[in-house]
Amino acid sequence: MRIFIKKSYKELSEVTASILLEKFYNDKRMNLSITAGASPMGAYEIVTKKISENIQDFGHVHFYNFDEIECRKSKKRMSLSALEKDFYLPAGIKKENIHALTLANRSEIQAELNNNGYLDFMLIGLGQDGHFCGNMPGTCEFDKEIYPVPFHENVPWYSGYAAAFADPDDIPEAFVTMGAAAVMKTKHVVLIVNGKKKSQAVRRLLTEEISTAFPATVLRMHPNFTLILDEEAASEL
Amino acid sequence: MRIFIKKSYKELSEVTASILLEKFYNDKRMNLSITAGASPMGAYEIVTKKISENIQDFGHVHFYNFDEIECRKSKKRMSLSALEKDFYLPAGIKKENIHALTLANRSEIQAELNNNGYLDFMLIGLGQDGHFCGNMPGTCEFDKEIYPVPFHENVPWYSGYAAAFADPDDIPEAFVTMGAAAVMKTKHVVLIVNGKKKSQAVRRLLTEEISTAFPATVLRMHPNFTLILDEEAASEL
Amino acid sequence: MRIFIKKSYKELSEVTASILLEKFYNDKRMNLSITAGASPMGAYEIVTKKISENIQDFGHVHFYNFDEIECRKSKKRMSLSALEKDFYLPAGIKKENIHALTLANRSEIQAELNNNGYLDFMLIGLGQDGHFCGNMPGTCEFDKEIYPVPFHENVPWYSGYAAAFADPDDIPEAFVTMGAAAVMKTKHVVLIVNGKKKSQAVRRLLTEEISTAFPATVLRMHPNFTLILDEEAASEL
Amino acid sequence: MRIFIKKSYKELSEVTASILLEKFYNDKRMNLSITAGASPMGAYEIVTKKISENIQDFGHVHFYNFDEIECRKSKKRMSLSALEKDFYLPAGIKKENIHALTLANRSEIQAELNNNGYLDFMLIGLGQDGHFCGNMPGTCEFDKEIYPVPFHENVPWYSGYAAAFADPDDIPEAFVTMGAAAVMKTKHVVLIVNGKKKSQAVRRLLTEEISTAFPATVLRMHPNFTLILDEEAASEL
Repeated sequence: MRIFIKKSYKELSEVTASILLEKFYNDKRMNLSITAGASPMGAYEIVTKKISENIQDFGHVHFYNFDEIECRKSKKRMSLSALEKDFYLPAGIKKENIHALTLANRSEIQAELNNNGYLDFMLIGLGQDGHFCGNMPGTCEFDKEIYPVPFHENVPWYSGYAAAFADPDDIPEAFVTMGAAAVMKTKHVVLIVNGKKKSQAVRRLLTEEISTAFPATVLRMHPNFTLILDEEAASEL
Repeated sequence: MRIFIKKSYKELSEVTASILLEKFYNDKRMNLSITAGASPMGAYEIVTKKISENIQDFGHVHFYNFDEIECRKSKKRMSLSALEKDFYLPAGIKKENIHALTLANRSEIQAELNNNGYLDFMLIGLGQDGHFCGNMPGTCEFDKEIYPVPFHENVPWYSGYAAAFADPDDIPEAFVTMGAAAVMKTKHVVLIVNGKKKSQAVRRLLTEEISTAFPATVLRMHPNFTLILDEEAASEL
Repeated sequence: MRIFIKKSYKELSEVTASILLEKFYNDKRMNLSITAGASPMGAYEIVTKKISENIQDFGHVHFYNFDEIECRKSKKRMSLSALEKDFYLPAGIKKENIHALTLANRSEIQAELNNNGYLDFMLIGLGQDGHFCGNMPGTCEFDKEIYPVPFHENVPWYSGYAAAFADPDDIPEAFVTMGAAAVMKTKHVVLIVNGKKKSQAVRRLLTEEISTAFPATVLRMHPNFTLILDEEAASEL
Repeated sequence: MRIFIKKSYKELSEVTASILLEKFYNDKRMNLSITAGASPMGAYEIVTKKISENIQDFGHVHFYNFDEIECRKSKKRMSLSALEKDFYLPAGIKKENIHALTLANRSEIQAELNNNGYLDFMLIGLGQDGHFCGNMPGTCEFDKEIYPVPFHENVPWYSGYAAAFADPDDIPEAFVTMGAAAVMKTKHVVLIVNGKKKSQAVRRLLTEEISTAFPATVLRMHPNFTLILDEEAASEL
């Protein structure tokens, strides 16, 4: 693990953009998995602009979402739709390079990754409750590569996440995520965290015992893991 | 993780020998860490014979013991002396290719591994109590690469291990081991287990929740891990 | 490059078998390309016996022939049929793990390799004229990954190779081979050479200027290349 | 090989900067070799600013110059002094992370690279005469990792290079360079070329037969090679 603290969100975004851009300039196929959400938006603005302006094809760069929540009623895929809006569309990534993981096709995606050299790079975020990808406190299983996560009233994190659905009929019975075993097989993993409200989660990630109670603790075992924080996120270290 | 069950200890030894021999026939430097003990003896007999008969130099193959118990009074190094007797001497490994880890030099060895590309290969064994290397139930720390392990009456595994010392004055206050974080950075890890009396430990490794209560469970997360069993060790699967 | 000289063909075969067997005991997908012909027969006898006796599936090990000559009249595929007889059938390799390269499907195989992490291992032989795979003196192109080789009276090596066809109507207009650029992308390449009649070719490989006049000279540039000789093949060094 | 054509030198510099910056954000040791000269100046301005502003230590990033010309009289080292001025000093790279190759220490540096995992990344330029690093037309040897290059009136490129010395007494009898075999062992190689006057060299690199007559042709065989051009350098393609 190597930790970098950046003075501002802008600096954090710039360095994250560089790391991501580099992947496009290799000769060999690159399998990337990048996070949706607020933290990477600064980096994505830089990267999508540069990628879309490029004349040549980036056909060797492939994308796999690391989790997916499919709304029960509307059928909206929350990860895919966010990634499309914030990255795939503005960057001009071709349909055939987007490998959309769902609960239904998880075995096929699992086989595909095993057959194509697995993921080269993951950009992930951190939840205040210690979740990363869809690995939730109390329900995550460290030895799974891709697995379904039950979503019902008995899981400890239910209420907070259920409240995020505008229409309760959209709450699914389960969603899908890559687990710690998939992350361990990824050649380089970068976790970016910004903002005061994540500072306690960063401290816990770095100091608590590795366990499913705070899933991101497991990242401390990854063979090539970079943690990039802004000063606010690092303020409790 | 990939599991192989071999009909006999002889077959297990032959395949282990092949895996180990291959490392000697690469062009690039290879850093290996191999286990002492009874399980690998069949493989070591094959490998040391072939290595010692070879005309050319294997100067590119380096060895790091993954743990060390130094006797307090006699100063005997238990891992090094066993490896010397069973592998280094019969194989004719040169002194400069043996990098002996001790409690005292653990920071230097740690820095050395970080500077030379880390370990390419580990051959490890399994304890009935779930330990691997010197990662003991209850005292192991998954996020450590190389760390000291206290050896005193308050550790849960004390009595059994203390009894193994002929002279109680030889019991050290601590020993040193590579931890799960070092194992995760190792490109290929092979665990060999043989015999009926280890069958329950094998089942627990594969079925229990990943935790320090049974340290070897953590191996299920390794990015390139091979488990080789004889039929007796596999008899509870 | 690293060179090993073995006292006998038996020893050369044993070490080659170990190198090949190791590939079956990794967790991750392995793409192998192995040579037909006389040199590897000793190794294949050992390996196919051990592989076929194994209880577990080796579904993660895939095979790509590195060249193919398709007889014009009989349609016999010379590389595939030799590999089937000497390796795939006795080892019990499943159809879906055999990716048969032909002149017709070379673009698909090329795309497949680029998408699955390329070759992990190649076992190749050496021609007395310096050819490796189907890279022939005078017609080989070092920067090609997979390419067609014209087979007609104007190529310098025509007469010798045409004479090998029992039925002249079987002589094709072209055959297909992986080139030096594909070999360079292969993570580990082992060249085995045995017998007195190859000793001059070994000397030339190691001493002549790198050029298409003696194609195997290019192997001296490979990032992880092992040359294994018996004493006869090494007798002019 | 993958080719990118950028609309301007500014764009070429920005993407080169991203590629270079990414290397600083891995956990593991990184061995880099970067070129002196005019082409990378735009990238170095961006990178050195960002690196020097960073709070944390980049002690895991090491630098090796790929060639060196030591002036006979003044003893000035031309590569090192240019790299110090344009990169090492403004970036604040520590002395212990700069491994200065010279004619005298080439065996030590060679051994060091073999022991530390070799180079992870090279950024190189292209000479109008087809040279890369110090691999000169007519005198380069493709199978050498690090080798001395004689500098006297009988080498075909003597006059042009001798004229570059203000004081003729500074012309050395030889200089040192990494050769194609070292470049082949480097995990990722990026060649940047800008400007109209290099356009013919770019065309020749991509179209001429691979040979020491135009040394950079050999780069077409590299397993992970990226060529980045501005529109002027690409104008003859």
